Amino acid sequence: MPHTPLSPETIAELQDLFGPDLQTQPDFDTCFTHDESGLSRTPEAVAEATSAEQISALLRLANERNFAVTPRGAGTGLAGGALAECGGVVLSMTKMDRIIDIDADNLVAVVEPGVITARVREAAKDKGLFFPPDPAGLDRSTIGGNAATNAGGPACVKYGVTKDYVLGLRVVLPSGEIVDTGASTRKRVVGYDLMRLLVGSEGTLGVITELRLKLIPHPRAVTASAVLFSDPRRAVQTVGAVMAKGVTPSALELMDHKCLRLVHDLLPFPLHGDTPSLLLIETDGDKEQVERDMERILDVCREHGALKIIPASTEAQRAKLWDIRRQISLRIHDAAAIYASEDVVVPIARIPDLIDALPGLEAAFDLTIFAFGHAGDGNIHLNIISRDNNAQDRMQACLPRVIKIVLDLDGAMSGEHGIGVAKKPFIEMELPPTILALQRQIKTAFDPNGVLNPGKIF
Amino acid sequence: MPHTPLSPETIAELQDLFGPDLQTQPDFDTCFTHDESGLSRTPEAVAEATSAEQISALLRLANERNFAVTPRGAGTGLAGGALAECGGVVLSMTKMDRIIDIDADNLVAVVEPGVITARVREAAKDKGLFFPPDPAGLDRSTIGGNAATNAGGPACVKYGVTKDYVLGLRVVLPSGEIVDTGASTRKRVVGYDLMRLLVGSEGTLGVITELRLKLIPHPRAVTASAVLFSDPRRAVQTVGAVMAKGVTPSALELMDHKCLRLVHDLLPFPLHGDTPSLLLIETDGDKEQVERDMERILDVCREHGALKIIPASTEAQRAKLWDIRRQISLRIHDAAAIYASEDVVVPIARIPDLIDALPGLEAAFDLTIFAFGHAGDGNIHLNIISRDNNAQDRMQACLPRVIKIVLDLDGAMSGEHGIGVAKKPFIEMELPPTILALQRQIKTAFDPNGVLNPGKIF
Repeated sequence: MPHTPLSPETIAELQDLFGPDLQTQPDFDTCFTHDESGLSRTPEAVAEATSAEQISALLRLANERNFAVTPRGAGTGLAGGALAECGGVVLSMTKMDRIIDIDADNLVAVVEPGVITARVREAAKDKGLFFPPDPAGLDRSTIGGNAATNAGGPACVKYGVTKDYVLGLRVVLPSGEIVDTGASTRKRVVGYDLMRLLVGSEGTLGVITELRLKLIPHPRAVTASAVLFSDPRRAVQTVGAVMAKGVTPSALELMDHKCLRLVHDLLPFPLHGDTPSLLLIETDGDKEQVERDMERILDVCREHGALKIIPASTEAQRAKLWDIRRQISLRIHDAAAIYASEDVVVPIARIPDLIDALPGLEAAFDLTIFAFGHAGDGNIHLNIISRDNNAQDRMQACLPRVIKIVLDLDGAMSGEHGIGVAKKPFIEMELPPTILALQRQIKTAFDPNGVLNPGKIF
Repeated sequence: MPHTPLSPETIAELQDLFGPDLQTQPDFDTCFTHDESGLSRTPEAVAEATSAEQISALLRLANERNFAVTPRGAGTGLAGGALAECGGVVLSMTKMDRIIDIDADNLVAVVEPGVITARVREAAKDKGLFFPPDPAGLDRSTIGGNAATNAGGPACVKYGVTKDYVLGLRVVLPSGEIVDTGASTRKRVVGYDLMRLLVGSEGTLGVITELRLKLIPHPRAVTASAVLFSDPRRAVQTVGAVMAKGVTPSALELMDHKCLRLVHDLLPFPLHGDTPSLLLIETDGDKEQVERDMERILDVCREHGALKIIPASTEAQRAKLWDIRRQISLRIHDAAAIYASEDVVVPIARIPDLIDALPGLEAAFDLTIFAFGHAGDGNIHLNIISRDNNAQDRMQACLPRVIKIVLDLDGAMSGEHGIGVAKKPFIEMELPPTILALQRQIKTAFDPNGVLNPGKIF
């Protein structure tokens, strides 16, 4: 059922509800029209929420008047999940940004969804505690958005994804009802696990208004090393060997030769050969343990032909390595006229096969593919670019080929970014009709009128 | 809609399908009529499955002829989840017991559901890998049953529950369709997370026919200590302090004075005072780390008034301590004419409040409550017993009071056993109508005719 445009009467009611926190066309901040996927959609209005009750009233109105509501965190998503695909109201959650409690006795944080992820981590750290999920955008992304997309980051290889750290959610359901799901405890088997269904549902099943997060003791020490290999295949074969060695690094990131060339001016070492590739490795834990673990990992690297090992034991040295990692994404963007970010994931032992497939793809579609990211859990970011503005057709032809290769390697099309609108055209490649039908039925059970973030995923 | 009794024609079709693996009344093994909840239900037939295709055919027939199918592992459940509440066919999965692959390169195990959990752990260990979930019945329970109930055990405090180690499931849906859910990879955000919905759904949404499990490097060393306190409150206050200290033990189990008295002949120390209480603590990891962590934990115990510390650094000493822990459950059963096992869970800091409430409950209902279990994650097993066969009414009156106390402490009625039929009468105390309605809709989406494990949870 198509949605109904906001009538002047509806806009007046929204103004009553949100006051100065409502913006309507043409006066609203254009930041609400896009995220970091490169896509943009223009909503009819933007409402900045300050309470669950307000969101409840909004959703009740949306059901009555048949308009779409698209919840949005900081808009750092890479799949268009926060874009107003069907018009209506973009519901910004960034004003609900209180850290309600860091409970050191129960190792739990209670926060509002608009809190920037880095703030959650800092507040936990101030009490000696650790919130591990560390998506690349953590200095800008909100914790609510991270939960909605089940975001991951370098630390996942050791600590798991955002879903593993959400204990409970307060959500406003599409009907407007406010419910608590999950628990205040670390274990619970009481009925179906709606909480874990909500995490990663990309804002299509409920609007998160409060999160109860699991914290763990903060590691006492961390150390890092950068290890240079002669080619990406050798680097990723080392990844599998490291993971099978019995030591779990707290980060194990890959940067291929194309990425390294982009940031050569930042590197504390010269680049030799055709295809130099780097692993950025961290271990954390107790001080002695950290060093012993790193030594074990570096032994594996040496056995696999490491050309050069650059230790980074001080905070400043580590920061410099991570800055290189971050600059890669930025510079790829800068270098591209058109751009697609595929966060594909394959089993660790299949990463070399994925890497081997890239030159053929580049040649077939005349595109450039940068490979970097979370090699330790098989989640390789393929940034596919062209400097040619007219390469859109080639890009569109390339994407399903990438996904096909990944699925043939027993992988998945998204490890942490989600489907949103960007990957929606391809979801039938991965999910069979029965599974899609069940997912649609679940969506309908939660949102019979299709008012909450419609047009996403499937 | 009530189910239709199995007609002779249906039984003949089942015989065609299962051959000698079908048993019908009155000749079937009575072990299939009960689990370890103390409840029993008699099915009309028992079928022992050997393939997913057979289960698919069975479920298609069940939809056609309107009979119930109740999947069952080893029947070690404590909530009646595997009992034939609505007659029909009990579907035993224990013959599907192959370990298909222990893939050390990808740190993944692929197993059939009937594999005994301990075998999964041993097969992983043989390759230097670790499957952490360790429910108390792991020597008898099946991995499929563990996944269906999202089982936990002592190791959860450090490693998480079964759900955290399931990457993918092959399931036969109630419709008879065979589908793969989840992934071969450690991360995936592609549509709704049906896999985590299936884990813990107590066999009501699908029959698991294959599991893909996450393995991690096996810890190189483990050590244990038993620490005696003068009373249970002091012991559980120590639990909170340990968890807040920045060291996560790999087990942190409580045994209260009633439990200790039951096993006094096994204890390597005399019991003094009125209410001696014991913490059984383990740390695992690298050898030096394990000892340093244990020393830190024991420091906290000393600060909190530990009376006696009994180290158990050898395998034999550890085994002896764990045997004491295991004997408690068995002897409580032996001592009871009637018995209820409540695996309630509360936030760590509220455990002392829970413990404080027990004497009042015992007095009010003239029952005996043994408290033991996974204190480190707040999952305390309350075994409520009476030596009086006529105490059923008092027991039935006591259970909702226990649950009320737990919910008032922000806890949950089940940490790891599930709802099944045993706790079904109480689920409305914990889940609000909106959540229950959504869960029922999900059940209907998966199983419109209500043929798979009907009568459970809600």
